[in-house]
Amino acid sequence: MTTKQRPIDPLQQRLGKPADGWRASLYAIIFESDTPTGRAFDLALIGAILLSVLVIVLTSVQPIAARYGDWLHAAEWFFTILFTIEYMARCLCVQRPVMYARSFFGIIDIMSILPSYVSLFIPGAHVIMGVRILRLLRIFRILKLTLYIEEYGMLGEALMASRRKIFIFLSVVFLIVFLLGTVMYVVEGPEHGYTSIPTAVYWAISTMTTVGFGDLVPKTDIGRTIASFMMLLGWGILAVPTGIISSEISHRRGQRPLSQRVCPACLTIGHEPDAHYCKDCGAKF
Amino acid sequence: MTTKQRPIDPLQQRLGKPADGWRASLYAIIFESDTPTGRAFDLALIGAILLSVLVIVLTSVQPIAARYGDWLHAAEWFFTILFTIEYMARCLCVQRPVMYARSFFGIIDIMSILPSYVSLFIPGAHVIMGVRILRLLRIFRILKLTLYIEEYGMLGEALMASRRKIFIFLSVVFLIVFLLGTVMYVVEGPEHGYTSIPTAVYWAISTMTTVGFGDLVPKTDIGRTIASFMMLLGWGILAVPTGIISSEISHRRGQRPLSQRVCPACLTIGHEPDAHYCKDCGAKF
Amino acid sequence: MTTKQRPIDPLQQRLGKPADGWRASLYAIIFESDTPTGRAFDLALIGAILLSVLVIVLTSVQPIAARYGDWLHAAEWFFTILFTIEYMARCLCVQRPVMYARSFFGIIDIMSILPSYVSLFIPGAHVIMGVRILRLLRIFRILKLTLYIEEYGMLGEALMASRRKIFIFLSVVFLIVFLLGTVMYVVEGPEHGYTSIPTAVYWAISTMTTVGFGDLVPKTDIGRTIASFMMLLGWGILAVPTGIISSEISHRRGQRPLSQRVCPACLTIGHEPDAHYCKDCGAKF
Amino acid sequence: MTTKQRPIDPLQQRLGKPADGWRASLYAIIFESDTPTGRAFDLALIGAILLSVLVIVLTSVQPIAARYGDWLHAAEWFFTILFTIEYMARCLCVQRPVMYARSFFGIIDIMSILPSYVSLFIPGAHVIMGVRILRLLRIFRILKLTLYIEEYGMLGEALMASRRKIFIFLSVVFLIVFLLGTVMYVVEGPEHGYTSIPTAVYWAISTMTTVGFGDLVPKTDIGRTIASFMMLLGWGILAVPTGIISSEISHRRGQRPLSQRVCPACLTIGHEPDAHYCKDCGAKF
Repeated sequence: MTTKQRPIDPLQQRLGKPADGWRASLYAIIFESDTPTGRAFDLALIGAILLSVLVIVLTSVQPIAARYGDWLHAAEWFFTILFTIEYMARCLCVQRPVMYARSFFGIIDIMSILPSYVSLFIPGAHVIMGVRILRLLRIFRILKLTLYIEEYGMLGEALMASRRKIFIFLSVVFLIVFLLGTVMYVVEGPEHGYTSIPTAVYWAISTMTTVGFGDLVPKTDIGRTIASFMMLLGWGILAVPTGIISSEISHRRGQRPLSQRVCPACLTIGHEPDAHYCKDCGAKF
Repeated sequence: MTTKQRPIDPLQQRLGKPADGWRASLYAIIFESDTPTGRAFDLALIGAILLSVLVIVLTSVQPIAARYGDWLHAAEWFFTILFTIEYMARCLCVQRPVMYARSFFGIIDIMSILPSYVSLFIPGAHVIMGVRILRLLRIFRILKLTLYIEEYGMLGEALMASRRKIFIFLSVVFLIVFLLGTVMYVVEGPEHGYTSIPTAVYWAISTMTTVGFGDLVPKTDIGRTIASFMMLLGWGILAVPTGIISSEISHRRGQRPLSQRVCPACLTIGHEPDAHYCKDCGAKF
Repeated sequence: MTTKQRPIDPLQQRLGKPADGWRASLYAIIFESDTPTGRAFDLALIGAILLSVLVIVLTSVQPIAARYGDWLHAAEWFFTILFTIEYMARCLCVQRPVMYARSFFGIIDIMSILPSYVSLFIPGAHVIMGVRILRLLRIFRILKLTLYIEEYGMLGEALMASRRKIFIFLSVVFLIVFLLGTVMYVVEGPEHGYTSIPTAVYWAISTMTTVGFGDLVPKTDIGRTIASFMMLLGWGILAVPTGIISSEISHRRGQRPLSQRVCPACLTIGHEPDAHYCKDCGAKF
Repeated sequence: MTTKQRPIDPLQQRLGKPADGWRASLYAIIFESDTPTGRAFDLALIGAILLSVLVIVLTSVQPIAARYGDWLHAAEWFFTILFTIEYMARCLCVQRPVMYARSFFGIIDIMSILPSYVSLFIPGAHVIMGVRILRLLRIFRILKLTLYIEEYGMLGEALMASRRKIFIFLSVVFLIVFLLGTVMYVVEGPEHGYTSIPTAVYWAISTMTTVGFGDLVPKTDIGRTIASFMMLLGWGILAVPTGIISSEISHRRGQRPLSQRVCPACLTIGHEPDAHYCKDCGAKF
């Protein structure tokens, strides 16, 4: 059922699936997820990624690391070797291994195992392995054959279509934040914690975005007046990106109902509900 | 008037209303709310729930507990026994008491009284009785026969219809929060309070959601730069769920006025509520 | 021009405008704002209100109060006597003074002057005069004859139409906040500052609304996990009221374009763009 | 290609482009950006502005200023003299230099160089040069000939069209914030940090906008109750400006696709861009 509609994965086409032999079977298991074994492999891989991330997280917690340090160290190397074998298998079964190594997932895959080996020489480097969590993006490969692909694509399209509006919005916000940050640096000064313009801009961003950590706060009356103005402004202009995205999603959703009317003559879909003639062939409805 | 349109409560059907006798009368009073006595019982129950919750709240305030401790203790037991009697009455008057005990409200009802009895053996356990507030959900049973049911259902439907989009959004947010939290753990380190990856992720969530408690704050320049980026990102992507829900609600609202009125002559639908003639064939309504 | 469309003020009708004489002239000046003198009186009154509020604000600032205390005291009494005279004039020139005294603005007017007299006997009472700022609501009386009335009414209508959805939303939020506040009281306990259930609920509200003062923060791991969940939840469900209001405003705005098509036979407006027959008289377009 | 649609810049018309000679060539380079040299000049200018802003930022960071102070001082004077020459060139090549000096960009340009000269006499004045960042607004001049102009104009129009609704919203918010701030000043008083009404209003704004710095927090039970109410209110009414802007942007976006295509046979409008036949009369396009 899903086979018929399965979108051809552009990455898989580029990498080149071997014609037959054990490499083709391996390829089907590792890179495809519409066979039972392929799906089982993907699920096992995601389980392994989650467990290995859990190991990294637990290692960072002092009391746990002090008590189970050896176990966690062993688990860490177990997953590193497992992922190394998987990486080699991936390189082996594609026609163009270099292209895989350079692809988005290829880079993430190598970045998930390299830090462990590097940490043999440079202690502490293994912390960068947090990047391993990115491998979870593979989860979308399993999901993409299902209903999630439509929603996922729609959100992405809506963001892409709004990118110019969002760019203009962000550049205006950046100008405001820089200007007001500089003003606050002049008004409050280093004696109230605004030690430099970058620090004041950091404060301005935390105020405009309504985060408000409270590590820096205005102490003078003028500073508080400017801060009040910034808070109201930031609170208000939050409406702008929301409006942009909202209307974009609404627009896309609004287009969908159109695809329900079919012309009996040319079988095209997407005619408006009030149309009396087919807009493609001119047949009377 | 409301009788005609009254939706048949699926829970009541499952529990089985007794045919007649005192159990049927009791059932009508306790489980139904469209007779005067049933309504009065529900209102009295909600009053008792509110009062019992107030007792729990007051018990938690030290100065009041020190002064009126005995009175509050007595009131607590009064409500516990009252709710125990009510629970028994509910079990008695339904055909299938086990099914009631296992239902959503059955579990909440037993959880509202058990902690009091448990606290006889384990001191302090009665605090869990805060769960008693959930009994207030019964308030929707009274409301559901009125106009609120339509609005309530619409909000629920809109959330259900958007669940896949919201799931994708949340999983992307979780990935970002985990990645940036790990980065901050590496950048700021335990000496600035980021003692473990879970702590850093907690901070990342409080920053991205614009809460910004300020118990943990970045102290290094790189940390502040990443924090600034996270604040802008979190502030911006808040627009996405809002856009999803907005367009979903707009869509549902837009559909309603259309599907209601049919022309008896040409059978077109979508006539406005105040139309006197069909807009397509001119027939009088 | 504005005279023709001037809405009849329901308050003015109830108060009863005197037929003629100096009371009618005084009434026209004080209560109406469509004559030049009436408008000038209103503008002068708003100026006086703003100045008197400024006096109250300045009195509250210690350094200024210490230095200009006598001047501010004198100004305060000047405005009190001025507003007392105005109040008497209002009572004098209406037919039913008691009805005026009981109306919304009548109560605000008396509350703006009473505290000054009360403070002669009870020192410090004059601070309540901050309520005087409410008199600025009169500003909408001047604006209401202009273009602002349409926008104002539309926002009000949109909020009114959404009131049931907003009520359901707020009651669900209140249940969540109370439940999670109680849970945090149990988890964190008085030793981390969560001294009572009301305090914990206050913290829960400040977290769910993304305010995050930081005076109370979770210190345990379970507490931080619950807090993270609450922050994401509060951040996410903010989308719901926004969606409700957005779609309500969009809907109202969407109805407007309909009013552009006029039936040539019966001259009604508001026909849909695709209608072929008038929906009111059945005439063919 | 862009020449045909190039909007005539109203500022350039007012300033008056010289007819010919070296002044006309200089004008084309400095004020216009559709020739290769004009574009190169604009890009170089934006690079110089960014670098000069970077110098100001670096000067404000103590450790860097202590080490590279002389270099930064020299760079600062280099950019000041560069911008002075540019300013003179701009004055020279327009027909009406006074009009340029008074225009928006003319004022920003002079404000970018004056503080450096002033700081020769008044030390510390050069900090105001942060205003130099405003010169980056010129970046929109380059962008405006491209696709960004449509998006930019649409956002501006949407904000302009909503200005009355936003004004009403802000005035209501201001009334609420002032009233509740005064109430908190009375309730909490100077002993909890609410030292004056302006301070309390500053706190009220930081609470209503969900910023929540935490430098001032309510300590009394009544204060916390009022604060809880304010947080929920502020969180909720954030939906109003978002709804206003959302519906405004949606409306503008919805209007566009309709008004573009007219059927040559029956003169109906609103045909979809991909239609081949009129949906009302069946005529071929």
